Amino acid sequence: MSTPIYDRVALIGLGLIASSMFWAIKRAGLAGEVTGYARSEETRHTARRIGLCDRVCDSAIEAVEGADLVVLCVPVGAMGKVAAEIAPALKSGATVSDVGSVKRHVIEAVSPHLPENVHFVPAHPLAGTEHSGPESGFAELFDNRWCLLVPVENSDPAAVARLRQFWQGIGANVDEMEADHHDLVLAVTSHAPHLIAYTMVGVADDLRRVTDSEVIKYSAAGFRDFTRIAASDPTMWRDVFLSNKDATLEILGRFTEELFALQRAIRTGDGQHLFDYFTRTRAIRRGIIDAGQDTAAPDFGRGATPKT
Amino acid sequence: MSTPIYDRVALIGLGLIASSMFWAIKRAGLAGEVTGYARSEETRHTARRIGLCDRVCDSAIEAVEGADLVVLCVPVGAMGKVAAEIAPALKSGATVSDVGSVKRHVIEAVSPHLPENVHFVPAHPLAGTEHSGPESGFAELFDNRWCLLVPVENSDPAAVARLRQFWQGIGANVDEMEADHHDLVLAVTSHAPHLIAYTMVGVADDLRRVTDSEVIKYSAAGFRDFTRIAASDPTMWRDVFLSNKDATLEILGRFTEELFALQRAIRTGDGQHLFDYFTRTRAIRRGIIDAGQDTAAPDFGRGATPKT
Repeated sequence: MSTPIYDRVALIGLGLIASSMFWAIKRAGLAGEVTGYARSEETRHTARRIGLCDRVCDSAIEAVEGADLVVLCVPVGAMGKVAAEIAPALKSGATVSDVGSVKRHVIEAVSPHLPENVHFVPAHPLAGTEHSGPESGFAELFDNRWCLLVPVENSDPAAVARLRQFWQGIGANVDEMEADHHDLVLAVTSHAPHLIAYTMVGVADDLRRVTDSEVIKYSAAGFRDFTRIAASDPTMWRDVFLSNKDATLEILGRFTEELFALQRAIRTGDGQHLFDYFTRTRAIRRGIIDAGQDTAAPDFGRGATPKT
Repeated sequence: MSTPIYDRVALIGLGLIASSMFWAIKRAGLAGEVTGYARSEETRHTARRIGLCDRVCDSAIEAVEGADLVVLCVPVGAMGKVAAEIAPALKSGATVSDVGSVKRHVIEAVSPHLPENVHFVPAHPLAGTEHSGPESGFAELFDNRWCLLVPVENSDPAAVARLRQFWQGIGANVDEMEADHHDLVLAVTSHAPHLIAYTMVGVADDLRRVTDSEVIKYSAAGFRDFTRIAASDPTMWRDVFLSNKDATLEILGRFTEELFALQRAIRTGDGQHLFDYFTRTRAIRRGIIDAGQDTAAPDFGRGATPKT
C-alpha cells in the first residue's frame, strides 16, 4: 500500500474505464476515498451492488465536492455538459482530468466552464476492451499500457506531475503530447481502424442474407478480429468520430486512395505491386513486437498452443 | 494411435500449413509414411534438420511416387504448375487434394493435368497464423477449426469420405461447399478483410514519417490487430487476390460504398446514423462468440487478466 496521491478522487461516469480505474486505485492505495457518479440510475445501482467506488453519489455535484482529483469518464460528446454541471462545486486547487479518446474537442468543450482556481490536465489512457459498462472493469486493464497526458496552456506543472504519478500508480506508462498531434496519431492508430472495422462488419452483415450464417461460422479466417474491434461501445465511438472529424476524414481519405490503388493492381493482375506492398506492411508488425506492444505468439489459431 | 487412414501421404510445399499437417498426422497416427518436397533447397534442409516429414525428397515426382494422398500446399498461383509436374508419377487410385484459400481457380488450374485414374478432392483448412515457413507449424493449428472440402464434379464419394476422416483425425471440423460459393464466403470473411488490413497498415507506414514511431508505440489502440493480419505471407496473399479477383473486388466495392456513407455521416454530423450502424455491428460479435469461433474474454488489454 503506497501513500495516497490524492485524498479524494471523483469518477464521473462509471463505465469500463472508470471501473477499471477504481479497482486499480484500490489495488495500489492511490486515494483516500473514491466517489462515483453515473447518470443512469441502473448503473449507480449496479455500482453499489458490486462495491464499485467507496461512495456512489446521486448527483455529479455531490460526487465532486471536496475531491482533489475529478476524472470525467463520460463519452466525449458529454464532456462539456458535465463540466458545466460540476464547475460550481469544484474545490479550489482541485485537478480536473478526463479519459476521452479525442483531446482538442474535449479541451474546447470543458475549458470554458472551469473556474480559474482549478487545474485542467486532459488525459487519455490507451486501453480498453470490446466490453463496456460498470461490470466490465478490472484492475489490470492499464498495466503496461500508455496513458497520454495532454496539458493545456497554463497547466500547472505540479498538477501534471501529480497526475502522472497517479497514472503510473494505476499501472500505466505515461507520456505527454500536444492535443492536435494526439488527435492525428490516434486517428491513425485507432479511429480510422475502428471505422474501417465497423464498415467491414456492416458489409458482412448485409451479405449474411446471401450466405446465411456462414460468415459467422467461418469468421476465424480474419474477419473475427474485425468483429472484436467493431463490438466497441457505439456511443463512445459515435462521439469520437464526430469530435475528431478532420483528422479521421484525412486518414480515411488516404486509406481510400491506397485501397483504390490496390484494387487496381488486383484488377490489372499487377502481382509485383501487391507483393511489394504486403512485404512492406509485414515489416511493421516486427516493429510493434519489438516495441513491446504485442507478442510474436501466433494468434490466428486462438486457443491453440504452438509446439515447443 | 489410430489406424492409418492412408499408407503414404505426400506433402508438396513445406510451409506453415504442411508442417502443421505433418505434426498433426503424427500426433494421431494418420499415415504410415509422410513424404515431403519443397522447391527451395533451404526449406528442404530445414525440414530435414527439424524432422519435418519421414522422408524429404529432392523432387516432387519422387515425393508423390506411391502416395495414396497427395496434398498440394503451395501458393495458389503455383498449383497448376505443380500438378503438371507430378501428374505422370501419380499412383492409380490416389487422391490429390490441396489447401488453397481459393477454390475455383485451383480447380481450373489443377484438373486439366490430372489423369483419369486419380481422385481430385480440393480442400481448404481455415486456419493459419501470421507466421510462415517450415518452422512455424504446430500440431494443434487445426484443432476445432473448419476444413472445407470442395468436391468437383465426379469426385468419388469414397475418396471424399476418406479425406473427411483424415481432416477430422487432424483435429478439424469438416464441411462441404461448392467452389464459387466458397470463394464468395471467403472473400467476405478473409480476403477483403486482409486487403483492408494491408491497406490501413500501409497508410500508417506512410504517416510514420509524420509521426515518427508513435504509430507503433501507441498501436494497442486498435491498429495492432490490423498489423497482425497484415503480417501474413505476401506470396500467398498476392496469389489469393489475383485468383479470387471477382469476388474480392465485388466485396471491396460494397465496402467502399458503405465507407463513403459513414464518412458522409461523420462530415455532416449525423450521429444517429453512426450510432445505429455501430449498434448493429456489435450484435454480430455476439453471434461469433455463440458460434464458438471466439471467446468473450476481453482481448484489447492483451496480457491483462480480467478481475473475477
